Amino acid sequence: MTVSKTTQTELIRVAHMLADAARPVTLAHFRSTGLAADNKDGTGFDPVTIADRGAEEAMRTVLADTRPDDAVLGEELGFKEGTSGFTWVLDPIDGTRGYISGTPTWGVLISVADQTGPLFGLIDQPYIAERFAGGFGVAEVHGPQGRSALHCRAPRPLAQATVLTTFPEVGTLQEGAAFRAVADQAQLTRYGMDCYAYALVAAGQVDLVIEAGLNAYDIQAPIAVIEAAGGIVTDWSGGPAHEGGRVIAAANRAIHAEAMAILQTAPDA
Amino acid sequence: MTVSKTTQTELIRVAHMLADAARPVTLAHFRSTGLAADNKDGTGFDPVTIADRGAEEAMRTVLADTRPDDAVLGEELGFKEGTSGFTWVLDPIDGTRGYISGTPTWGVLISVADQTGPLFGLIDQPYIAERFAGGFGVAEVHGPQGRSALHCRAPRPLAQATVLTTFPEVGTLQEGAAFRAVADQAQLTRYGMDCYAYALVAAGQVDLVIEAGLNAYDIQAPIAVIEAAGGIVTDWSGGPAHEGGRVIAAANRAIHAEAMAILQTAPDA
Repeated sequence: MTVSKTTQTELIRVAHMLADAARPVTLAHFRSTGLAADNKDGTGFDPVTIADRGAEEAMRTVLADTRPDDAVLGEELGFKEGTSGFTWVLDPIDGTRGYISGTPTWGVLISVADQTGPLFGLIDQPYIAERFAGGFGVAEVHGPQGRSALHCRAPRPLAQATVLTTFPEVGTLQEGAAFRAVADQAQLTRYGMDCYAYALVAAGQVDLVIEAGLNAYDIQAPIAVIEAAGGIVTDWSGGPAHEGGRVIAAANRAIHAEAMAILQTAPDA
Repeated sequence: MTVSKTTQTELIRVAHMLADAARPVTLAHFRSTGLAADNKDGTGFDPVTIADRGAEEAMRTVLADTRPDDAVLGEELGFKEGTSGFTWVLDPIDGTRGYISGTPTWGVLISVADQTGPLFGLIDQPYIAERFAGGFGVAEVHGPQGRSALHCRAPRPLAQATVLTTFPEVGTLQEGAAFRAVADQAQLTRYGMDCYAYALVAAGQVDLVIEAGLNAYDIQAPIAVIEAAGGIVTDWSGGPAHEGGRVIAAANRAIHAEAMAILQTAPDA
């Protein structure tokens, strides 16, 4: 839908209010001793903490006050219907494994979408006090070094590129093999960055993030931020990625095409 | 040697001066576009940047002024003899791969040793403005959340433990297999944290770091910080680790023993 400038400004303002509301909740528990991690999927190690739920509740309270007619989809508390055509997509702590390990790589993911996908998003890292924003003409980071514009990298060959991923922690064996087929041709592969990896694509620091097994709330904010910075995010077939699944985030169309060609011909992918 | 309280205070003061001198140099180039990365080992991708050399030069200038009789061993500029019995061991940017990828996981490693090994160390993360210190009765972190004491975790079984590592980026295939034998029995394994991994052992957030192929300047500051926080750092045979090589850093003796037993029986280790 067409979104008026006034509404854009309001949605941006509310997104920052959500991030501001989540920060103290996530920070109150980060690096605390004795943080309880429930095992929510029953089959592996998927910690969900009191901070995760508390941060989403804090954000939903803000939305109930400021945008009561919008729909809300959150990792922890599910889907709430709306009537405005806008849906807020929230991941209160993306990277709970990083969170419970004390690494500054998790983030609060906040985005607002219409039926076509995400329009505006934030990737907020509360411990560093760093916030990446993209959409409605905005593409910027505000952090320890102040404010600066986000621009994805110019094209370079895969052989000179850096790839980030959460493999081998995510995905199937076949997906892992396809990922490695790309990584084997890259100059540098780095692991374990959680949602911070997507922020680094937008910040022009790395070329690719390749992952699998994602949910909508894992990827909608990164899509908004990266696309605002000039990058491209699709699924491994080149289609829309905002429902999650297998995702490739690229700094530009050239490196996207080079990596996609390998992903699509990898054995068993 | 016995180090007087006055000398301890002086060495601590100088260590912080070194970290303060390195910070603006590393930050001036962090996330800059077009950062040149030389390939210094000729066989793989080992980036060395102007920031790396500049930060070590800045620290050596401070030492020449304040501690001219101490020896200095630095990653970039080699060994300078001394007469005092103290040796400063400096890694201006530990984790250059993280540095050139924009991740906040690299650090400036500063330690001072006598002939027995490291006495005091700092792990400084300039972007987060976070500094972990240990030795001479000090065990503390100063960062975005203020100042707090460092205490390694109490014992828990390996099956409930978190292991951090730079594998698969470091080590031989055999060393990687030995690492995986431990990781397979742990609850959670996380990758790519560079020297920040050791800080997280000292901060009580994780249980183990297991690595190989380290140099003295990679590990002496982490040894000082972790041991001050109650942990233990050895090589994979239980001997001193301050010359580098294969290293295991553990939150306590129990988890150290459990991991060591696996490392020593792993096939081909």
